[in-house]
Amino acid sequence: MVDKKLSGAGLRGQSAGETALCTVGKSGSGLTYRGYDVSDLADNATFEEVAYLLFKGELPNATQLEDYRKNLSEKRDLPEALKEVLKRIPADAHPMDVMRTGCSFLGNLEPEQDFTQQQQAADRLLAAFPAIMCYWYRFSHDNVEIECNTDQDSIAGHFLKLLTDQAPSELHRRVMDVSLILYAEHEFNASTFTARVCASTLSDMFSCITGAIGSLRGPLHGGANEAAMDMIQKFSSPEDAKLKMAEMLANKEKIMGFGHAIYRESDPRNVIIKRWSEKLASEFGDTSLYDISVACEEFMWDTKKLFCNADFFHASAYHFMGIPTKLFTPIFVCSRLTGWAAHVMEQRANNRIIRPSADYIGEEPRKVTPIEQR
Amino acid sequence: MVDKKLSGAGLRGQSAGETALCTVGKSGSGLTYRGYDVSDLADNATFEEVAYLLFKGELPNATQLEDYRKNLSEKRDLPEALKEVLKRIPADAHPMDVMRTGCSFLGNLEPEQDFTQQQQAADRLLAAFPAIMCYWYRFSHDNVEIECNTDQDSIAGHFLKLLTDQAPSELHRRVMDVSLILYAEHEFNASTFTARVCASTLSDMFSCITGAIGSLRGPLHGGANEAAMDMIQKFSSPEDAKLKMAEMLANKEKIMGFGHAIYRESDPRNVIIKRWSEKLASEFGDTSLYDISVACEEFMWDTKKLFCNADFFHASAYHFMGIPTKLFTPIFVCSRLTGWAAHVMEQRANNRIIRPSADYIGEEPRKVTPIEQR
Repeated sequence: MVDKKLSGAGLRGQSAGETALCTVGKSGSGLTYRGYDVSDLADNATFEEVAYLLFKGELPNATQLEDYRKNLSEKRDLPEALKEVLKRIPADAHPMDVMRTGCSFLGNLEPEQDFTQQQQAADRLLAAFPAIMCYWYRFSHDNVEIECNTDQDSIAGHFLKLLTDQAPSELHRRVMDVSLILYAEHEFNASTFTARVCASTLSDMFSCITGAIGSLRGPLHGGANEAAMDMIQKFSSPEDAKLKMAEMLANKEKIMGFGHAIYRESDPRNVIIKRWSEKLASEFGDTSLYDISVACEEFMWDTKKLFCNADFFHASAYHFMGIPTKLFTPIFVCSRLTGWAAHVMEQRANNRIIRPSADYIGEEPRKVTPIEQR
Repeated sequence: MVDKKLSGAGLRGQSAGETALCTVGKSGSGLTYRGYDVSDLADNATFEEVAYLLFKGELPNATQLEDYRKNLSEKRDLPEALKEVLKRIPADAHPMDVMRTGCSFLGNLEPEQDFTQQQQAADRLLAAFPAIMCYWYRFSHDNVEIECNTDQDSIAGHFLKLLTDQAPSELHRRVMDVSLILYAEHEFNASTFTARVCASTLSDMFSCITGAIGSLRGPLHGGANEAAMDMIQKFSSPEDAKLKMAEMLANKEKIMGFGHAIYRESDPRNVIIKRWSEKLASEFGDTSLYDISVACEEFMWDTKKLFCNADFFHASAYHFMGIPTKLFTPIFVCSRLTGWAAHVMEQRANNRIIRPSADYIGEEPRKVTPIEQR
């Protein structure tokens, strides 16, 4: 077998397969899900419609959407054994370890028996992830065993009510819905590619999603919105932000939430979440965190020509909604699950096991020396 | 960004990075770990030496080996919370779901805080996997809560004693040791590549290994030895085997345990495990399953020019040792963990996030239609 030598590590710019799900930065910016621009979807659709679109290829009509919402609502509760597992995870655990474990454990109780159950498995995880996250969080942090059903008919509203015990305002529900749309799908990023590699062995849906969560956990992938939050909270004013960021750049510290591996000009998701962050700031009555964020954006553009990616204004937006920083990446899971599962289904429909080669750079052939002579 | 168009799906024959760990089929056959032929290691080393070799680059001397064995022995017991989780997994769960969940849950309790702990995390999993597998198996199948420490100083002996409650014979211990050596490492196969993709986001060791287990679970990857066992158990004699395999071929049924994605002439691991399977058959006092296996090998070579891969004679070998078929792939996990973890360390040492591109084959740009008009 002859290995084709390719330039660049990390398979950057190399095609690893086909997809009908998404385009990313086709002309330097722009993000489409099955042909629809993400900004069009964020303005004119709900997250459940986007999930349906990713899975089935077309947006649902009103009846299909109602059926789908009902189906998801019925799948929200957690089995008692899973609650018992979540109760045994300490409060200082990494929240992505919780999501990974919750997904993996559920696969033991409700396995995908064959691929005819793939939609059912994806829907089950889509419905159950908010409860997995909030059950662990509320139990380990507040010592409360939450009820895993709510009267909210959207995943966004359901999550916010599980977290806060209160029906969310219409604005909060809508912003969370938009956020879930923005994070839903992004082509062959590392976590999605993990899911596809796993799917290519014909493994089950729970294994694919569990693996993807593990990859999203990495600080080079998910987690940028948490890092952005940690940073902007240290700034007392827009002026302070600019001063301190200049120091960070001088010290060669990594600043998260800016630039992108694929986008060259801008991240199309930024303008959307930024607008919502501004609305939330007004409602919140204290716009300082938003103003600081804008100062950061200006500073990074002026000094480094780096633009905000989707994560940066998510930090302030989530903060205004009262979401604890450590849940930012788990929310990403609740959204991206839709893209991951759609990619698993796509991989299965036209599969070949993903098994690349490697360039060998190790020792020449050698003989084992008896241990007493080593 | 211009995508390079590559022939063939599944990245076959395309280099996805560098490795010093392994060569596979460099001249059509042959398998080396860090320059040592696998047959040399199987004859002249133990699994613990191979694990040390993969992790550290060189075989240990006697003192280093003794220290390493001691270190691993001390890491075998499971935390009470993990036992509680394993007890809640039903007997009919997929054993690979159990391994995946056990690994993931342990990551909550004993997280790898930073990469200085990577060897510790790998050793912990290497030491604990036999107990994770056997604790669940014995509890769910025999209602026994096993003690997770044994007096066995090898992982092979430890596993066999956990499973059977009895000190294994020297022959059984040695065959299990050889088996763990043979399965330890195999370059950029799908599960190892999963671990590397996950590692490339700088995620933690537990996430990488959890993801790899999920990929090994797929029937196109792990599981061939179980499928081989299921098949040979249906044959009553060598003649019956040849007749029934001819029927299977005529019906285009998939026959597992033959051929290989990379090897062209033979699988170098087959001759080794076949020899041990023959020894076990003699000791067992009934060689029929071995004789049937030899008949299968002859038949597949004569009719299809397909050779046995590592998995085929593993089936009879494990069976002669009294290992339940459903634990075959989990044993693979206990072994391949060493290769996975070594690849994670190698990826981290020279990292770029693995993020390929895709060829878009979906819808052209389109506008969202209001839901009432769909």
